[in-house]
Amino acid sequence: RRGVVVRASGPINPDIKKDVDKVVDSVSLNDLDGKKQVSYCRCWRSATFPLCNGAHVAHNKASGDNVGPLLVKASE
Amino acid sequence: RRGVVVRASGPINPDIKKDVDKVVDSVSLNDLDGKKQVSYCRCWRSATFPLCNGAHVAHNKASGDNVGPLLVKASE
Ligand code: FES
Ligand code: FES
Repeated sequence: RRGVVVRASGPINPDIKKDVDKVVDSVSLNDLDGKKQVSYCRCWRSATFPLCNGAHVAHNKASGDNVGPLLVKASE
Repeated sequence: RRGVVVRASGPINPDIKKDVDKVVDSVSLNDLDGKKQVSYCRCWRSATFPLCNGAHVAHNKASGDNVGPLLVKASE
């Protein structure tokens, strides 16, 4: 993929909460209790948004994109 | 905006780390030390990616989209 530049334009969110003006989600550190790591979606394709469900894989393959989740990790 | 559905297709990441196959970022809870809240970008337009710099506002205005950041909050 080195050297490949794919330009994007227009909306990036196909389906999620289209009835609100701006989708903002929050996670408090307590939400991680008992988990080492939680993945949050940044591709706007996850059926479990705001969580990542792996849908970025199909999106990347279909579009030539390279997006992936944000990992929130519990520190020791 | 209620009832407005804007379909998106194709890549959603115009510029960020296009030389890697998948952009994954992580935050450990220690990274929040001293901050009440940190905003992480999900629009792929931020010049300070993975942090949100407010670029989603211009993206939403230009495209009719409704994306916004993920807020990571320190719990009490
Ligand atoms: S499903 Fe969207 S980043 Fe993984
Ligand atoms: S700049 Fe991308 S979500 Fe705010």
